[in-house]
Amino acid sequence: MLKLSRLLLHSSRDPLSRKSLFGEATGDFKLLRGITTQTVMSSAMQSSARDGNSAVKIFAPYSIYKGKAALSADPRLPTFSKLGSGDYRVERRGVIMLTFWPAIGERKYDWDKRQVFALSATEVGSLISLGSKDSCEFFHDPSMLSSNAGQVRKSLSIKAHVDGSGYFISLSVVNNILKTNDRFVVPVTTAEFAVMRTAFTFALPHIMGWDQFTNQLPHGANQSSPKAVHELQSSEWDR
Amino acid sequence: MLKLSRLLLHSSRDPLSRKSLFGEATGDFKLLRGITTQTVMSSAMQSSARDGNSAVKIFAPYSIYKGKAALSADPRLPTFSKLGSGDYRVERRGVIMLTFWPAIGERKYDWDKRQVFALSATEVGSLISLGSKDSCEFFHDPSMLSSNAGQVRKSLSIKAHVDGSGYFISLSVVNNILKTNDRFVVPVTTAEFAVMRTAFTFALPHIMGWDQFTNQLPHGANQSSPKAVHELQSSEWDR
Amino acid sequence: MLKLSRLLLHSSRDPLSRKSLFGEATGDFKLLRGITTQTVMSSAMQSSARDGNSAVKIFAPYSIYKGKAALSADPRLPTFSKLGSGDYRVERRGVIMLTFWPAIGERKYDWDKRQVFALSATEVGSLISLGSKDSCEFFHDPSMLSSNAGQVRKSLSIKAHVDGSGYFISLSVVNNILKTNDRFVVPVTTAEFAVMRTAFTFALPHIMGWDQFTNQLPHGANQSSPKAVHELQSSEWDR
Amino acid sequence: MLKLSRLLLHSSRDPLSRKSLFGEATGDFKLLRGITTQTVMSSAMQSSARDGNSAVKIFAPYSIYKGKAALSADPRLPTFSKLGSGDYRVERRGVIMLTFWPAIGERKYDWDKRQVFALSATEVGSLISLGSKDSCEFFHDPSMLSSNAGQVRKSLSIKAHVDGSGYFISLSVVNNILKTNDRFVVPVTTAEFAVMRTAFTFALPHIMGWDQFTNQLPHGANQSSPKAVHELQSSEWDR
Repeated sequence: MLKLSRLLLHSSRDPLSRKSLFGEATGDFKLLRGITTQTVMSSAMQSSARDGNSAVKIFAPYSIYKGKAALSADPRLPTFSKLGSGDYRVERRGVIMLTFWPAIGERKYDWDKRQVFALSATEVGSLISLGSKDSCEFFHDPSMLSSNAGQVRKSLSIKAHVDGSGYFISLSVVNNILKTNDRFVVPVTTAEFAVMRTAFTFALPHIMGWDQFTNQLPHGANQSSPKAVHELQSSEWDR
Repeated sequence: MLKLSRLLLHSSRDPLSRKSLFGEATGDFKLLRGITTQTVMSSAMQSSARDGNSAVKIFAPYSIYKGKAALSADPRLPTFSKLGSGDYRVERRGVIMLTFWPAIGERKYDWDKRQVFALSATEVGSLISLGSKDSCEFFHDPSMLSSNAGQVRKSLSIKAHVDGSGYFISLSVVNNILKTNDRFVVPVTTAEFAVMRTAFTFALPHIMGWDQFTNQLPHGANQSSPKAVHELQSSEWDR
Repeated sequence: MLKLSRLLLHSSRDPLSRKSLFGEATGDFKLLRGITTQTVMSSAMQSSARDGNSAVKIFAPYSIYKGKAALSADPRLPTFSKLGSGDYRVERRGVIMLTFWPAIGERKYDWDKRQVFALSATEVGSLISLGSKDSCEFFHDPSMLSSNAGQVRKSLSIKAHVDGSGYFISLSVVNNILKTNDRFVVPVTTAEFAVMRTAFTFALPHIMGWDQFTNQLPHGANQSSPKAVHELQSSEWDR
Repeated sequence: MLKLSRLLLHSSRDPLSRKSLFGEATGDFKLLRGITTQTVMSSAMQSSARDGNSAVKIFAPYSIYKGKAALSADPRLPTFSKLGSGDYRVERRGVIMLTFWPAIGERKYDWDKRQVFALSATEVGSLISLGSKDSCEFFHDPSMLSSNAGQVRKSLSIKAHVDGSGYFISLSVVNNILKTNDRFVVPVTTAEFAVMRTAFTFALPHIMGWDQFTNQLPHGANQSSPKAVHELQSSEWDR
């Protein structure tokens, strides 16, 4: 079934690959939403829900308020699906969510007019490896696999200032259904971009689910007796 | 109410923006103190207070003793407010606290004459992205929103040595109320600055509250039965 | 016995050192498999198995699908052996496992034809320190210490694009027993390589077992009485 | 008493400052050993000893075996002293311990002839910020404050290869009491040094004790009732 999923996953990528500069990566993210699994445990925004009944959300955005718009960033963790074996597989990859909302007067901002852009792991990789003179641009179609495909086009652009003193981060959202055309531009200083780079670098393994790979040794009195040998680690020598 | 808070937050920023080189960031930090919330759980300096009744403080400053003054740095975690939904929002952003105190003789230092400067996330971003020839300066007014606004002026300066062998970190505090004028200068070697850069880079996601975004999977026997599907993750596809 | 192990460990390294560009490191990894220990607790792919009876595996590969092949990477944690003293020693070093599998048609990939290459800590160090113009190559013999030594030769090559826009990552597997000769080439963009570099940098201390070195302070009511002085830390001043 | 300690701490630094290139830092480390505290909880080499009675040691050295000697590195966590208030202060700073032991034949090494060198936080900062052409050297006197001061001199040298392809790491130990003079030289490749740099960067906040500064939110049913407001965070606005 695993193989089947992989084949399905890549049998209809055309809509994406024509639209996305980083089609491979964003495609993976988006298409994974189509996989049906029996059991899904979302840990996104949950903290320490070890007992399964306390799904506490944490709000800790990094926000930048500038003249014409505000920008905030916060990570969204992946979802995991429980396999028949009792193991877990990443179901939907995590993202770093960028939210833009416009200024509507002197230091007033309208949260209701916000637009979001979800950076995939590879898009985060692109952002954190930007040189001080570099630029990059990403394209998303949030309705990609629905009947509304192509009706909404989002593009995020990160352009270095000519003097290397920071970046312009801008989001454009063209919605042919609602007949709207939103554009936000937020100038970001080198210091603010350093915070984003550092925080995104920290968050990247978490949105990939790699923070699960942490050694856990048995502790306490119940470990005093010798344990049976477990050999879980598959290696390249096993094949 | 969230929107209201945001509007309030930015309706009276003038005092700050005239005084701060990084007004956006330090302003956010300072103004957040004015928000009233019903329930505040301060985790600053607390470690593993999971049971709610053991608020252990940890003192682990990184200290540098030089000829005319000493400098120490240690992180202060953010405070969180519990929302009506049971979720948490960062109430007051964390900082990295720099403390300076003067030498008062041969290898003697006077802790009672210390002055502090609280680096915001963005100021930390500025420090950790400094090149070996770069300099930066931050300005704070600790009485900013009180009747004493403007009476105390603090400035922190980080200046690269001409030969790239380190930095001068200096703090100036002019207090018009107490009629005092303190100035501390601590030369910091490249190795010491590398410790600060590495430790501050480690601490930055923690003072932002992003260390809460860690995946937690259910464990143990109580997870053997299938769980209901939870879809907590809001995405850009939801709007 | 510890000393004996060390001597044994290095008394028959010739087969490796003639085959491996990074013989010292891969040799350590491979030869460690030969040590016999009484109790082995494998934490590879386990998450939070604190109670010893829930060895949950997590699947969170970072996958890149390109025209002729796909590549995925995921960490495998080290195994620990319990010593007679009740302490733990790393038994088998962890790796970052690279898996390649071929495209078999338009966006179809054949997982059954996969080949793997296990990057040791030092090989990971080589990868994450690659400049944008650099290249490196590693050689493995999965049957090294068996009677089939030399029959299977694997080589992984990472070659920078001439224009610095990414890398070619290719795996060649020559199997003289099965009379097969597989070769996979996956072009990797700068953004994708940045994800690998960041995730591998995060994972490196974990596959080395260094994530175990985390301070744990006592908490709770049972710590209110003074504790006896423990001096576990051996220092260079002790000898 | 805190102030007294600080004064004592710096009233007799002459022996050190004449011997150490990085006297400020190594001095702090060494002199801290002289402070007497009532309660010491050593967490060095302990893992998850939350219940206070299972002080498990973990051995996970990163070892490099070369022609004339072997070198291994592993972190030693700080010790904490419990203050009268129930809080904790770092008592002895952690280190990264380097161990050298000689080759005594073809791929045979003699662990009994090992010598150690404990890198302080600042010395680690020096190592991880070394450019590919840089060198550095540290001097330690393990008997510094005893009657044997000056009798044993250790120096660790890290010298870049002329072609930038790695470093020579060498330790010299001159012991006038035992009339011995040991010298170890281990050539380290760029890849091996990248592992050390990455692992040391990971370990640095841990040996400083900063890994304790991690946000902990209350969880579970016992948190449903509103909590009293705690304001533990001292800020620069409090003075």
